This record gives sequence, C-alpha cells and structure tokens, in this order.
Amino acid sequence: DAPGWVSGSLSDRFRAMRSLTEALAAPLSDADATLQSMEDASPTKWHLAHTTWFWETFLLRDNTSDHHAYHEDWAFLFNSYYEAEGERIDRFARGMLSRPTLDEILAYRRHGTDAMGELCDREELAPLIELGIAHEQQHQELLLTDIKHALFQNPLGPAMWDRSEAAKAQPGEPKSRGWYEHLGGIALLGHDGDGFAYDNEGPRHRTILEPFALSKTLVTNGEWAEFIADGGYESVGLWLSDGWAWVKEYGIEAPLYWRDDEQFTLAGWEARDPAAPVTHISYFEADAFATWAGHRLPSEAEWEAIARGQRPEEERLAHDPMAGNQLDVPASDPSWQIPHPRVEAQGDGLFGNCWQFTGSAYLPYPRFRIADGAIGEYNGKFMSGQNVLRGASCATARGHSRPSYRNFFYPHQRWQFTGLRLAKDL
Amino acid sequence: DAPGWVSGSLSDRFRAMRSLTEALAAPLSDADATLQSMEDASPTKWHLAHTTWFWETFLLRDNTSDHHAYHEDWAFLFNSYYEAEGERIDRFARGMLSRPTLDEILAYRRHGTDAMGELCDREELAPLIELGIAHEQQHQELLLTDIKHALFQNPLGPAMWDRSEAAKAQPGEPKSRGWYEHLGGIALLGHDGDGFAYDNEGPRHRTILEPFALSKTLVTNGEWAEFIADGGYESVGLWLSDGWAWVKEYGIEAPLYWRDDEQFTLAGWEARDPAAPVTHISYFEADAFATWAGHRLPSEAEWEAIARGQRPEEERLAHDPMAGNQLDVPASDPSWQIPHPRVEAQGDGLFGNCWQFTGSAYLPYPRFRIADGAIGEYNGKFMSGQNVLRGASCATARGHSRPSYRNFFYPHQRWQFTGLRLAKDL
Amino acid sequence: DAPGWVSGSLSDRFRAMRSLTEALAAPLSDADATLQSMEDASPTKWHLAHTTWFWETFLLRDNTSDHHAYHEDWAFLFNSYYEAEGERIDRFARGMLSRPTLDEILAYRRHGTDAMGELCDREELAPLIELGIAHEQQHQELLLTDIKHALFQNPLGPAMWDRSEAAKAQPGEPKSRGWYEHLGGIALLGHDGDGFAYDNEGPRHRTILEPFALSKTLVTNGEWAEFIADGGYESVGLWLSDGWAWVKEYGIEAPLYWRDDEQFTLAGWEARDPAAPVTHISYFEADAFATWAGHRLPSEAEWEAIARGQRPEEERLAHDPMAGNQLDVPASDPSWQIPHPRVEAQGDGLFGNCWQFTGSAYLPYPRFRIADGAIGEYNGKFMSGQNVLRGASCATARGHSRPSYRNFFYPHQRWQFTGLRLAKDL
Amino acid sequence: DAPGWVSGSLSDRFRAMRSLTEALAAPLSDADATLQSMEDASPTKWHLAHTTWFWETFLLRDNTSDHHAYHEDWAFLFNSYYEAEGERIDRFARGMLSRPTLDEILAYRRHGTDAMGELCDREELAPLIELGIAHEQQHQELLLTDIKHALFQNPLGPAMWDRSEAAKAQPGEPKSRGWYEHLGGIALLGHDGDGFAYDNEGPRHRTILEPFALSKTLVTNGEWAEFIADGGYESVGLWLSDGWAWVKEYGIEAPLYWRDDEQFTLAGWEARDPAAPVTHISYFEADAFATWAGHRLPSEAEWEAIARGQRPEEERLAHDPMAGNQLDVPASDPSWQIPHPRVEAQGDGLFGNCWQFTGSAYLPYPRFRIADGAIGEYNGKFMSGQNVLRGASCATARGHSRPSYRNFFYPHQRWQFTGLRLAKDL
Ligand SMILES: [Fe+3]
Ligand SMILES: [Fe+3]
Ligand SMILES: [Fe+3]
Ligand SMILES: [Fe+3]
Repeated sequence: DAPGWVSGSLSDRFRAMRSLTEALAAPLSDADATLQSMEDASPTKWHLAHTTWFWETFLLRDNTSDHHAYHEDWAFLFNSYYEAEGERIDRFARGMLSRPTLDEILAYRRHGTDAMGELCDREELAPLIELGIAHEQQHQELLLTDIKHALFQNPLGPAMWDRSEAAKAQPGEPKSRGWYEHLGGIALLGHDGDGFAYDNEGPRHRTILEPFALSKTLVTNGEWAEFIADGGYESVGLWLSDGWAWVKEYGIEAPLYWRDDEQFTLAGWEARDPAAPVTHISYFEADAFATWAGHRLPSEAEWEAIARGQRPEEERLAHDPMAGNQLDVPASDPSWQIPHPRVEAQGDGLFGNCWQFTGSAYLPYPRFRIADGAIGEYNGKFMSGQNVLRGASCATARGHSRPSYRNFFYPHQRWQFTGLRLAKDL
Repeated sequence: DAPGWVSGSLSDRFRAMRSLTEALAAPLSDADATLQSMEDASPTKWHLAHTTWFWETFLLRDNTSDHHAYHEDWAFLFNSYYEAEGERIDRFARGMLSRPTLDEILAYRRHGTDAMGELCDREELAPLIELGIAHEQQHQELLLTDIKHALFQNPLGPAMWDRSEAAKAQPGEPKSRGWYEHLGGIALLGHDGDGFAYDNEGPRHRTILEPFALSKTLVTNGEWAEFIADGGYESVGLWLSDGWAWVKEYGIEAPLYWRDDEQFTLAGWEARDPAAPVTHISYFEADAFATWAGHRLPSEAEWEAIARGQRPEEERLAHDPMAGNQLDVPASDPSWQIPHPRVEAQGDGLFGNCWQFTGSAYLPYPRFRIADGAIGEYNGKFMSGQNVLRGASCATARGHSRPSYRNFFYPHQRWQFTGLRLAKDL
Repeated sequence: DAPGWVSGSLSDRFRAMRSLTEALAAPLSDADATLQSMEDASPTKWHLAHTTWFWETFLLRDNTSDHHAYHEDWAFLFNSYYEAEGERIDRFARGMLSRPTLDEILAYRRHGTDAMGELCDREELAPLIELGIAHEQQHQELLLTDIKHALFQNPLGPAMWDRSEAAKAQPGEPKSRGWYEHLGGIALLGHDGDGFAYDNEGPRHRTILEPFALSKTLVTNGEWAEFIADGGYESVGLWLSDGWAWVKEYGIEAPLYWRDDEQFTLAGWEARDPAAPVTHISYFEADAFATWAGHRLPSEAEWEAIARGQRPEEERLAHDPMAGNQLDVPASDPSWQIPHPRVEAQGDGLFGNCWQFTGSAYLPYPRFRIADGAIGEYNGKFMSGQNVLRGASCATARGHSRPSYRNFFYPHQRWQFTGLRLAKDL
Repeated sequence: DAPGWVSGSLSDRFRAMRSLTEALAAPLSDADATLQSMEDASPTKWHLAHTTWFWETFLLRDNTSDHHAYHEDWAFLFNSYYEAEGERIDRFARGMLSRPTLDEILAYRRHGTDAMGELCDREELAPLIELGIAHEQQHQELLLTDIKHALFQNPLGPAMWDRSEAAKAQPGEPKSRGWYEHLGGIALLGHDGDGFAYDNEGPRHRTILEPFALSKTLVTNGEWAEFIADGGYESVGLWLSDGWAWVKEYGIEAPLYWRDDEQFTLAGWEARDPAAPVTHISYFEADAFATWAGHRLPSEAEWEAIARGQRPEEERLAHDPMAGNQLDVPASDPSWQIPHPRVEAQGDGLFGNCWQFTGSAYLPYPRFRIADGAIGEYNGKFMSGQNVLRGASCATARGHSRPSYRNFFYPHQRWQFTGLRLAKDL
C-alpha cells in the first residue's frame, strides 16, 4: 500500500503529507521540540513552523483573498535562507524559541493546512504545491535526524519511540556482495521532465560512462568494524588531506552514534547489527573506506545509470524508487518500523536505508539556470564545497526520491542517515 | 513582614525557601525551563534539580537510613563543579536536557523536600542546612538572571511575568547624591561569626582605611545615558586595557538589555526609567564610568565599613541588610514586585536593587583555609581573575545577604543585576 | 628566446631551472626570506630548502653511492606533506626558522645542484627529474606569491624589485572582447602522454561538450571596478551561500591588494591599470562576477578544448602555452618584466597573466589511481573541496604549463595570481 | 663593580644602558631579530626601535630645536600601546617587519643616542630620563625572554650564546630552607620617594600584616620534579578553577622549556640542575605548588616588608636589590654569565634569579592617580586580571629593581623568568 501522500488527489496527498509531519513530532514534548543541538540542526518546532511559513509565503499570500499573516513576527522567526523574503533569525538562535509553544505552532499548522484547502484544486498552482510537498518532506527527514542528534546529547539517551521486544530486529544475515555491471557509453543524466523534480536535477544532458560496476549491497556495520580493526582511522594514506585533518581535530574513531557494540537510534541505545548497513558516516570516511577496500565511490552519473536500468539485462524493477526501507506512516499499525537501517531485503535495489555518497561534487548541470525570485534561491547557491548523495534513507518519505534526485552535504557532515555503496572500474 | 525563609524554625524556613524556588519557576513552561542561552547560564530545570541534588548529596545521603539515590543517573546530570562528587555533564550540554521533564523534576523536588523533613530538627545538622539554604538562594538569583538572558534571545521578547498597567512604575524622581563619609583608621573586615556566613567571608581581620566617602545613591540610567552621550564607549582613555579590548571585540555600546529607550526585563520590553539604578553592566564598564565621573570604585573594605556603620554618626539603620529592593515572595499579593531595579526609597541604605562593583579582586582573606571535602571546593577555587561585588540585588532573596557578603564575577560578565556606587578619597 | 629550462639537455635545463629559483630570491635579505605571513604561505628560505630536500630525498638518496643526508635534522624541517617521508615541522612553525641562515640554505642548494650533476644523464631517471623540475617550478611561483603576501603585511610596503620609471607600464588599451566558439561534441580531456605531465592530468578520457563560447579576453581591473560600483559585494543574490558568508565574515570589499586606485605589487604600491587583467580574486568572487555579468565560468573541459584548438578554424597558435605574460629569467636585461598582470598583447591566447578559475571541482579523472610511495601522495589527496584553475600566470615559469595542466585552490584563497575568463552557452 | 648604568653621571648611565641593549642583540642576525613567536612577544628589532622611539617621542621631540622625526612612518611601527600617541601597528604584525633591517635600526639607535647627548645634562629632564632608562631596561628583559621563546620554536634549538665547557655550571648544592620571620603589625608599603620609581609603586601607605614567614630559598627544579612525580598536574584539588581549565586546554605537564632532563636556555638545550630555582611557571602553577607544599604565596606587602628589613634583627644587607643573579654587562669578560637561574649563593637575599609570584592582584594603591598625558597610560590601565611579582630575575638589569618594584603578568603567562618563594602564617 502506498502512503497517502503518494497517490490520490493533490489535496489528499497534501493532507496526508501534512499529517505525517505531525505524526513524526507526536512523541515529542514542547521541550524536546525546542532543542537545537548544533548550528546545522534546527528544533522540531522550527521545522513544523517553517514548513507552514513556506505554504503561507509562497502559496497563501498571493493566492487567497484577504490573506493576513498568521502572526506578523513569525516570518522573521521561520524564514530559513530565502534572502529575498527579508531578514531572518540568526541560525543559532533557533534553539532559544521556547515561545511560541508547540501547541501554538500546531495550531498554526492546522490553520495553514485548512487555508490551503481549495488551492490544491487550482491546476495552475499544482507545480508550486508539488514543490511545497517536496520541501516539507525534506524537512520531515531533517526533523528526524535533528531530533536524533539532540536526544543523543542527553546522557540519559532518551528514546523518541519505544521499540517493543517483539519489534526488535533479529541480527540479520548479510547479503553476499554482487555487482551491477554497466558497459559504459553515452548516458542521459538528469530528470526527464516527467513528474516533479527539483531544478538542480536538470537539465537532462548527455554524459559519457566508462565500463564500471556498482555494488548490489551497501557497506555494513560489520565491514566497517573490520575497517576500524585494520587501523582505518589511523592510516593517513587512506584519507584525503582535509579528511585526515578532520579526523585529527575531532578525534574521530568511529561513525557517529557508535558506542562499544551499540548505536544510538530513535529508540535510544540499541545493540548494533553487524549485517545492517553502516550509517552516519562523513564523505571523508566513505572515501577512506572505499580506498581501504580497494574500490571507489561511484560518480552520480554511474549511480543514476544503474538506477534507471537503461539496459534490459538489468532487473529494472529492483530499482523501484518506492521500494526498500523508507519512511512510511507511523500509524497505529504495530508493524510500523522506527526509522533505522536494516539488512536489505533481497531485491531492494538502490533506494532505502541510507543516502549513498558519490564522488561527485555538487555542481550545476550544463545549462542550469537559477530561477528568478525567492524560490530561485533554493538550490543553486549551495553549489560549492558539497558532495552529491543519491538514493533515499530510512527517514525519507517513501515516494519522495527519484533516480535523478540529488542530495548534498559538506564532506564532514554525518548526522544524516548516510552510507555508501562501492563502485569499481571494469 | 519578613519572608518565611528568614525567621521561624529551621524547618519552616527551609520549606519557605524551597517554595520560593518553585514559585519563581511557576510561570515557565517545560520548554522555557530547558533553555540555556550561554555557557555562563544554566536552564531553570537544572537549577531546580541541582539544588535538590545538593540536599540529597550533602544531607540526605549520609544522614538518613536506607537512603537511595532518587535516580541513579541524575547525580551526573545535576552535579555542578564539585569535582570530589564525581563526573558531571559538560557545562554546555545542560541546555540539551529536555528530559527529565519539568514535572519529573518538580516531583524530585517534592521528594527531596519531604525527605529533609526530620533532618531540619537535628541540631548538629543546622550549619549544613544553613549552607544549603544559602546555596539554593544563590541559585534562585541565577535562575532569574539566567532565564532573563534566555528569554532575551527570543525576538518575540517574551515576558516571564506580565505587569499590570497599574503596577507599572511611574518614572521616579532621582535622589540627590550625598556621601557617607568615613574618617579612616583600622577597621575589622569579615564576618563576625554571628550567624551563617560563607567560608570566604572570614576570617575576620584588621585592615587600614584612609579617609573616604561612599555615595549614598547608585548610579542611574540617566547618568549612564550622559556617559554614553559624552562618548564614554569611544574614549580609550577611560578604559582599562582589557576593558577596551572587550568593548572593541564585542562592539559594546550600552549596558546589556538596552534598546533605544527601552530595556528588557522579566516583564518583557519596557520603557527605561532614567531615575532608576543602572544594571547589567560589567566591571569594565563600571570602572570606565567611575573614571569618567572623576571618582572611583570603593574597595570592599570601604563598602563593608559603611555597611557596618561602626561609627555612631552614621545612620546605622539605613544599612539594614533586610531593607531595600530585594526579592520577596511572588505571592498572589498584587503588590508583589517583579524583580527590577527601582528608584531607591529614601533610607534604603546599601542593600538592594543591584550588586555593586568594588575595585577589589576576589582573593582569600588572611589565614583563609579551604575546608576539606567536597563542600570545601565551594569558594576558594574561584579566587583568581574575579572582582568582588557587595550588597544585594532585586533578585536576591531578602535576608540572604549581609555586610560581609562577597559576591564575585569576571570583569566582562554582566547578565547579573550589577550596578555601581561611587567612592572618593577625602 | 626560450628560457634555459625549456630546451637543451636535461642537465642544462635542470641547472637553468635551479638558477631561476635563486635569481628569484636574490633581492631578499635573510630576514625577508624568513617571513611567513599566514599558514597557507611558506618562507622563501623554506621554498629554497624544501625543493632541494626533494632532490635529495627522491633522487640523490637512492641513486648516488655513499649518499649522506646534508644535515640530519633538515629532513624534518623541509619535508612538506609527504607523510611517508616521516615527521615534519608544524606548518605554522615554518616562520620561526631564522636558522639555518639564507647563506647556509644557498650552500645546501649548491651542494644539491652539484650532487645532481651526473644523475641528469641517466636516462632511467629522466621522468623523476622532470617531476622534480615541475615541482620546483611550482615552488618558484609560490615563492613569489608568498613573499608578496609577506611584504604586503609591512606598513612600509617594501618592494622586492624596484621598477624604473622607464619600465613602468603605461596604462594599456583594453582589448575588445571576442569569443572563441566551440560547436560541442565529444572531446578528449587530459594529457595525451607526450612529454611530462602530473598524474592528475590523466588518464586521457572522453567527455561531452555542449556548444559554448569562451571569452578571448580576461576580465580587467576596470570591469571589476564596475562590478564594485554596481554593488557587487553587497548583493547577496550574486553570491554562492558559502561565498556570501566569507564576504561577511572578513569584510571583503575588493580584490586582495587593492587600496584606493593602487594595488600592491612585487614592486611595492603602484597605480592600478584599468585595462590590465584583474588578479588576486577568490573563486567566490569570480563566480559572483560571472553571475553579475550574465555569463558563467567555463568548465575545465571547455577551457582545455579551446586551448587544444582541435578545430582548424581556431587560431591554433594563439594558444601556445609558451606565449603570453609568464615568468622569464630575471636577467640583467633591463627589459625584464617584474611579474605583474599586463594588458594582453593580441594573440596571447589562453596562457599567461593569471590562472583562470573554472567551475569544475578538483576531482580525479575516470580511472585515476594514486601512485604508490611517497611521490604518490602528491596530488590525489587534495581532491576535495578545491576548484580547478587553468592557464598560467605572470609568475609561472614559462614552459611549465600545458593545455592539460590543472592548478587547484580552495574557493576562498586569493593570494595567487588568480583571475577569470568568462564563458557562455551557445 | 656596579654596571655602568647604575652609577656615574646621568649621561654616562644613559649611554651604558643603551650599550647594554645593543650588546644583548649582538649575537642575533637580522632574521633572528625579526622573529615574533606569539602575540605576547615582540621581535628584537622592535624592542631596539621602540625604545628609541620612546626617547624620540617623549624627550627629543619637545626638547630639541629643529627636531625632525627620524623616519615619518616609524612612529606607526614602533609605538606600543600609547594610545595618545596615535595609531600603531597591529600587535601580531610586528613579526612581519623584515624591513627596516637590523642595520637600519641600529643606525636609528645611534642617531637617537647621540641626539640625546646634551639633554642628559638638563636637570629638569632628569625624571623623564630616569623613566626612559627604566622603560628601556624593561624591554631589555623582554628582549631576552622574547627571543628565547622564538628560538625555542626552532626544532634545531639554536643557542643565542654558546657556553664554554668551562663556563657550564656544575650541579649545585641546594640550600636548606630557612624562613624569614615577621611579627606582623603596621607596615609601610610602597616607594618612599627616594630615587626613581614607577607611578604604580606609590603612594606609600600603611598596611597591616599578621605574623608570617617567608622562605629564604626559592623553590627548585628538584622540588618541582617531586611535585610532578606526586601527580601535581593531575590533581584537580590543588588547582584554582581557571588554572585547571588551563592545564586541561593546553595539556600542561611541566614548566615551559622542560624536556626530559633538559631545559631550553639562551645557550640552547642544557641539562637541568635540580638545585637551581625553577623558572618559567605560571601563577596557576605557582599557586598549585604552594597548595601541594602545604604553604601559600606571600602577599606583596609581606614580600616588601621582608625586603625592606624594617626590623633590626633581620640581616638587612642580605636583601640588597643590587645583589644576586641579575643581568650584568655581557662583556668580553669570560666570566660573564649567560642569563639563567643558578643556585643562589648564601646571602643573595630576595633579589635575583627569578621574579617571584605573590598572591596579590595587581591593583592601584590607595589614592593612586593616573598621570595625565601619554606617559600616564603607562601602568594604570593594566590594573585588571594580573598578578604582582616581586624581586628581579637573571634577565633584569642589575640595579633596575627595588623593594617596592611591582612586576605583573596574567596568571597563565610563563615565558618570563618566573618562580616562587613560599610563605606561611605564624
Ligand atoms: Fe526549508
Ligand atoms: Fe550550586
Ligand atoms: Fe613541494
Ligand atoms: Fe614600551
């Protein structure tokens, strides 16, 4: 069953998506939702309000008669980086917003959702609404990774959701590695124009691939433990120069959230499954691991070529962007899975569990142009110093990602569900 | 009427003091009480719990049969700087404690207060209980100044208490300055052993004073505005070298919490009363102002000599440590005053409104010895780089201070209710 | 006449190259040569000694009988980032090396040059010697840009070379802009294996180009002044997000070394020629300027395609890597030009005056492998977070660069002779 | 024989003092004299020039007809912190002054010394000239401690002076500790007005002392080794709170310049004499040691009372400020001693070997007033956050110090010859 935000009328999808946001925040108290644990992260309350501000600013303000700002000061608080939309609160001060309260922000959300009501039926607004849905889905994922980081700071190791004994994953059986092979040649890279995509996924353009192979499996916790045991974090020769400086400055010795045989999860501290994909690693670590393993990271063009399955001999369905371990409705359904990487079921393909580092820098595709206006600030200005990740994680709303989807982070960041899938030349 | 924590049985005083702590936190939500706005400050919840941990660790643990730690992990969370009591949470991580909740901490407080019940009647414990009361009173003041700083970070400028129109102070009439004169000679400095005092207030010892005078009035907001208008913050010659570096690095142009003609208070942003004492200034600022005014800061010995009123010609009663604008019960009584500096009533003497900078470094008195054990860490180890302040502020629990009381802060700190009273040579 | 390091026997070229290094340092005192003005830069003495250490370590040690280290402690001082060659001095401490003296280091250089004598005739060593020549030439350029930065710190603005009145450039006449056009298609990128190249210039591989044009002229000081006058440094919309943060943090308002109508040069402070190419700009600035101008930066593949002149209709000779304003022997010849950007003579082509930013991240080419051993550390480990620049500057030894040459710096760095050449889609 | 700067005509003393400065710099090259190893330190060349700037600015400018600035830009370079004398170079940029050269600065010195010629005979200028002599003597000591710190950064460990085998100190015999006792009472503190003194040494005033004793010996390297062996640097209970934070942040484990059984000296790395006084310790370390030893630091009043020998039963001559291990002419005399702490000869008294920490904060004496004008900036503005040291060190020009002399440094600084002498209550 596809989640409600994937199919049905735009209005239904909009509401299902909004409900998911609120369901994710449901286990949190006002105090939990106020925490900001680092400059890269934002409080849950801020995510809840900012996504509503987005609807208010880019849809409601210009398309409803008699629109009034819900609260005149909140645009200042909940704008993020849209410079064209005026001043905004200093990023670090987001963690000081004990007011407005969580209840006030939830009321703001209800007001926004209701006000959007009829706009969802206006066909000319559909593209903007699709953008708004995608935007809020990105914040759903950030909400989860940000609160995970905040709760991790607490020595009590609080859980966001309790996992029943029954629901606890049995240690999995690691899949044996296999490779998706590609003969090389000219490939088309970028969104094909069918359905929604971000501006940074286009324009579609030709690129040349040399013969290569991409691993069918993600690197696991167990493999990472071997890397550590083999002195991976102490071997300068494995690391990029900037990566080694980072390791030394911060005393990095393991992925984020590791402690002995445990790892911190949204259900608190739990035993680590060696067969599950490793997550919460930086680009620097991914690159060093690949070097250690005698392989390399794929380029984003390689990853996308496999994901598209252009060649008939590949199992096209294996790469269904809707499949794999992604975020579903945290319903009353007891089988609901707390977002966490799990051994991949056979056939999961390239999506799910974690975002996968590529060796590609996040740069504009040929002939990319930044759109005009505030929305135009969206993606282009971040095209410096970051790396592209592909796929989707256990915290990505199922249906949000695509073969052409480009996620991006700085090479030292690792509070997302980030992992890796090796590649090699043929 | 003296507040309940001042007179009556030790048990009654203990309970009244504990109630005050809770009354101060009463207007705050769990989220408010979780905020930590800077490393110098602590969340309200932390103050509430830490003061209880103090009773548990230094009184209940050793003096009640069958004592169990209320929660085994909380000592780690709520220890402050008592190294002898084991590891403690990194100071900056205090702001990440959304759990335990405010309600859980209030339950901890009730449990602690109840458990103390009979101990208050054991005479041999009275000195330690007096210390505990004084300790918690210090945290009451910090609770107020810390939450003020946290709420100030919020662009909405939230109020902790709402001030009714009726209760709003009318602009006061500044008192004309007069001087308390002192002929000099040998004075006794330090606590006389009668009643409770901190270790740092003794031993009592002789000191020599030269003839001097101490202002009868505190410097006011209006006088400070003249200092600013006269280029006080731009005149390097007025400043200590370290003070000037601080002014330049942080772009200091006015006392903390000033904005145009307003100042931030525990009742939110309010008009500033030129006749009221200036507060939230650093030692550097106090010293520069005194230089500008052609006077100087008093030494702590001078301040104490006036406060003691050793000479009959002084109005001894004027310096009653119980008098002046200090913290009383925030009762349902509508006349209760939100802690804020106000024009001093005639006869207020040296106590109340704000802590007053002296030019004295915070150093041990002759023959001071640090006591053994964890409690012994209390004051001695801070005797470097700080300055002594005397008096009591509008946020000091009435009755907490004394003529010999030594408060101390670093020369750049100014989130306390700090002000100044000028001195001059005769 | 080609400089001596370009043609002739390898032995002659080696000696001519070594002489150039010493000629560049000749105007400097021991004290000048000791200065280190920032962590990115090194003292002249360090460059003089480190390049000799390179010959000693990678050539002399293993290929001469009875080799002894010239000084046992100097490997520690003059190793740079070759981890495999052992410990090395903290980068910032390089500026503390008043000893060994400049004379001692020059003696070390003579000893090294002499010891290399016969090795230059051993054919099997030729590739390593070519690498050593290229390595020392890179340090020649760094020597010039580092000492320029150091002398700039001195309020007296000392000149490294005095420019006679006669030699002073007359303000030039800006060339009118034209465009080199390219029809797109499959291009071969990377070194073709003929002659020396760094490992990072290969392997040669196919890439796809869309039709584009590359400016025949470099952006000039005059055009940059227009950018400033038009509010270029104050318009957030022109900047990458990281670039804007850099502008704000460091208060950037103009290229490095600009002051009123002057700029700091190796001949001290001089009037700025509006017709000359702008230099000493960061990638952030180059990108913002291109956006402001309505164009973009070229990719490195585009730049190289034009430089190669694959299409007959282009003036192939115009792109002679030996042509243009590059570094020649600072001989007694009074016509010798102090390294400084000058209006390009017609037909200079793509090389000379300044390194030109591309929009390409510095990443490995497909199938690039890091070579084994210490030399292998050379280029691969810097492939993160940097941008590629192409061409050659007025401080690049003529003959050092090639169409496939990849220079690289971090996006904020600008102490090199860096400039830009615009590109556009066709 | 007293050094030439101590007795004779003012003119002779001025010239002898100037010669000493130059003699101290004589072993240094231009490059050595250009080094600045930290913000607290200045290059030798800067000391040489700044002291000449002082004579030029405060004596020559106003008292010679037709005075011209020696070089119009140099006031900017060589002013230190006299705000009233205009802008000055950023403190850290002092290390970039390869120009002017050492020779040019020595010529400036000769010019200044000659120009002062007749002024030394004008009686009304004598006080200012005495101040200038004292000022330059302070810089003589800084010159030595600053260049020691700079040479220490060099892994080669260069020596400023070579010590002949013959001149190498034999390990000394530690003196047995004895105590100077004082019965307490009213003492006069501060300069008595006879001879030159800095403004901060007055006004003379009464103070009260309790009975105490001051050690006859300085703490030795051997005693410090015991402190280390006993876990002194790992015992939080011994340290001031700020001191412990400093130990942890910088990984402090021993005095500055210690390495195994050696210490870095002005003659390079040498074996450490356990019997010699420990030096290069911070106030934090001195305080922790005193606590560990069961004693305390003296107050400055206590130290001065012993140094004055007010009571007849003390050996007054033992405290001769001219005696002990202090700086003499580094003449051709082979017996000249490179400045370095040595076992004290019996009867050395309180002066020599090292500056001795007191527990007193550096604050104005009662009725101290900052003098008007640029000279007035001299001492008063540093009266915050520093501690007083008394005595004189092996790098203090003999005759420079006095019983009332107040030296002062921040509690973490330790690049001076700083040590300690214990005190205790009686
Ligand atoms: Fe957003
Ligand atoms: Fe406490
Ligand atoms: Fe190199
Ligand atoms: Fe000076």
